[in-house]
Amino acid sequence: MLTLSQRGQEMPASPIRKLVPFAEAAKKKGIKVYHLNIGQPDIETPPAILDAVKHADIRVLEYSHSAGNESYRRKLVQYYKKVGIDVTHEQIMITTGGSEAILFGFFTCLNPGDEVIIPEPFYANYNGFACAAGVNVVPITSSIETGFALPPIADFEKVITPKTKAIILCSPNNPTGYLYSRKEMEALKDICIKHDLYLFSDEAYREFCYPKEDGTQGEYISAMHLDGLDQHVVLMDTISKRYSACGARIGAFVTKNKMVYDAAMKFAQARLSPPGLAQIMGEAAIDLPDSYFDAPKAEYQARRDLLVKRLNAMPGVFCPNPGGAFYAMASLPIDDSDTFCQWLLESFSWNGQTVMLAPATGFYGTPGLGKKEVRLAYVLNLDAINAAMDCLEKALEQYPGRTHA
Amino acid sequence: MLTLSQRGQEMPASPIRKLVPFAEAAKKKGIKVYHLNIGQPDIETPPAILDAVKHADIRVLEYSHSAGNESYRRKLVQYYKKVGIDVTHEQIMITTGGSEAILFGFFTCLNPGDEVIIPEPFYANYNGFACAAGVNVVPITSSIETGFALPPIADFEKVITPKTKAIILCSPNNPTGYLYSRKEMEALKDICIKHDLYLFSDEAYREFCYPKEDGTQGEYISAMHLDGLDQHVVLMDTISKRYSACGARIGAFVTKNKMVYDAAMKFAQARLSPPGLAQIMGEAAIDLPDSYFDAPKAEYQARRDLLVKRLNAMPGVFCPNPGGAFYAMASLPIDDSDTFCQWLLESFSWNGQTVMLAPATGFYGTPGLGKKEVRLAYVLNLDAINAAMDCLEKALEQYPGRTHA
Repeated sequence: MLTLSQRGQEMPASPIRKLVPFAEAAKKKGIKVYHLNIGQPDIETPPAILDAVKHADIRVLEYSHSAGNESYRRKLVQYYKKVGIDVTHEQIMITTGGSEAILFGFFTCLNPGDEVIIPEPFYANYNGFACAAGVNVVPITSSIETGFALPPIADFEKVITPKTKAIILCSPNNPTGYLYSRKEMEALKDICIKHDLYLFSDEAYREFCYPKEDGTQGEYISAMHLDGLDQHVVLMDTISKRYSACGARIGAFVTKNKMVYDAAMKFAQARLSPPGLAQIMGEAAIDLPDSYFDAPKAEYQARRDLLVKRLNAMPGVFCPNPGGAFYAMASLPIDDSDTFCQWLLESFSWNGQTVMLAPATGFYGTPGLGKKEVRLAYVLNLDAINAAMDCLEKALEQYPGRTHA
Repeated sequence: MLTLSQRGQEMPASPIRKLVPFAEAAKKKGIKVYHLNIGQPDIETPPAILDAVKHADIRVLEYSHSAGNESYRRKLVQYYKKVGIDVTHEQIMITTGGSEAILFGFFTCLNPGDEVIIPEPFYANYNGFACAAGVNVVPITSSIETGFALPPIADFEKVITPKTKAIILCSPNNPTGYLYSRKEMEALKDICIKHDLYLFSDEAYREFCYPKEDGTQGEYISAMHLDGLDQHVVLMDTISKRYSACGARIGAFVTKNKMVYDAAMKFAQARLSPPGLAQIMGEAAIDLPDSYFDAPKAEYQARRDLLVKRLNAMPGVFCPNPGGAFYAMASLPIDDSDTFCQWLLESFSWNGQTVMLAPATGFYGTPGLGKKEVRLAYVLNLDAINAAMDCLEKALEQYPGRTHA
């Protein structure tokens, strides 16, 4: 009998995409669905970077260098300098989205059976790449009560074994929006050095950091800002969110560790090259004026402020104020977030509208956690967010599985 | 101490790209290098498919469906019908190049430690993907004397173990150019059914099949043309060679085995989507007239004819006539193909010119094989091929490691 591989069987289905059929069914019934479930921004892709592709003079669309076009990598050096990261073009490898950078990190640094520690809730696809690479994810729980701050370092120490090879940190965080402080980053640095761990730093959202409630701006700290950690850090980057270009599939694997870079390069060579047309977009993006980020950032901030205010005004709902990215996690007075999110699509509508959310269960590695939490991506405009929050408010009143906290 | 993973250490470097520094050094000395070493065609990318991207009206370059745009997959159904392959759009998954289709096949169907049988010489990057997935490649030797025909089925039977899960076949073949006959394909079918093996069929070059020496056209047989093998076949496809669009990074994973498709889809979801702009190219390519292939095919055929004639006219050289793709393998009167190919770049020039070839050693899984063979990609025009053959002819006269057969 033909059989699937074990990883083919165990590979998790996307927790975000599993509700898609219910959303499609709702739409077929004529219900308007507000998609706060997925990090697909509605912000316009800068026309200048699309124009760069349109104006490119291409006779033969050839393989690029396996590390990406050198001209693009040289320009990225300038970009990184602006955000305080000092790297050369030979420390940058262009990847097919941030996704491939994560996969290369696992392939290069971890054996099957090795362990990677990730504060949960975390980006669900880390599970998928870990499964593909045979790596075991060890979650450390962060809590909504602290706004998903870094768990105590003692919690890390408790789970470190000889098989622990890396920690993944995403700041600003998907799914929590949490922006890790310098103190937290320094604590991570110490533990990485103490136990010889790689720090995989997913910085997809670095441009999107917002003021705290006291009006002070949260300080963005890259793993590459930490002194003495150069050999440990692999930066996993992407243009998807930065320039609202998710479909381009252009990311980067950045490290000063030459041994790691050279080994990752062999995986890059096997797949020949990253996408050619989209590299032109990425390169053109470096020429956008510094002011480019002002408008999307202000827009996201306004959305965050509205979303958090609306959520916290609902009885039994708590949403810590996220410091960055474009996600918020909220705890709701519900029995089960999977059931609730499906119910929103299957059995609820208000004025012909409903809202699609991501159950938080998919973002936790520890079974049973996240049942009262959902992730909301504020990727729709203020009117849509208000309408979506109206739906959620009504839904919580009607939901049969409502709990009374 | 920070360590690399075992696969990071064992991952083979690209055997084709390892000579690149020597080519660069030769160019710095002012020597013109004819690149017959890599399958990067010089044929123009059809302007119509690049124009499709230029004229696309994109406000936000969003993630596509993880299986690729439905509109593209529906059009691919028409394309496949034209080549005698009957599939639905739900049996097609768009991948990031053929490379990703191969990786998905390994991930989905083989456990670490499982074995895949591949007739050697074979496309070197199969080794890389196998290493990434922890799969062991078991080579079965085909011989230049038979023009690299399928080895006897008894050779397959000899190496099949309980860990054998799949056979990879590439037809027309890279690196040999061999076009497998119906009889050979049927023999493979029988062994796949007998031993419950998947048949991974790499058909990147299906459009490029040429007449034999007797003037009859070789019949192109897809694995999907074989009756009764539907559940076993995974077709790994790409637009790279078909439309001279290597840099696009658009391929396809096609199977009628729903269990395999659904499992592969989970790996596709983890990486979100294939490249967006290039999918527009792929979709536009389906609208090219059927006559589109006439010109590149005639060009490749003329090049093949010239290359094979020139090679076989050199003393001690033998090049079987390849039935397809744009590669030829030749045996040369040399001691070591790696040394020779490096010598061509490092120590030889004729009228200020030299030629870059791929040592065949990189295409064999069995150590020690291929030392007298090189692969030549006829991706340059007739004049360049003539000039490159002049160089090779002179080089073989001068090479210190020349053998006398």
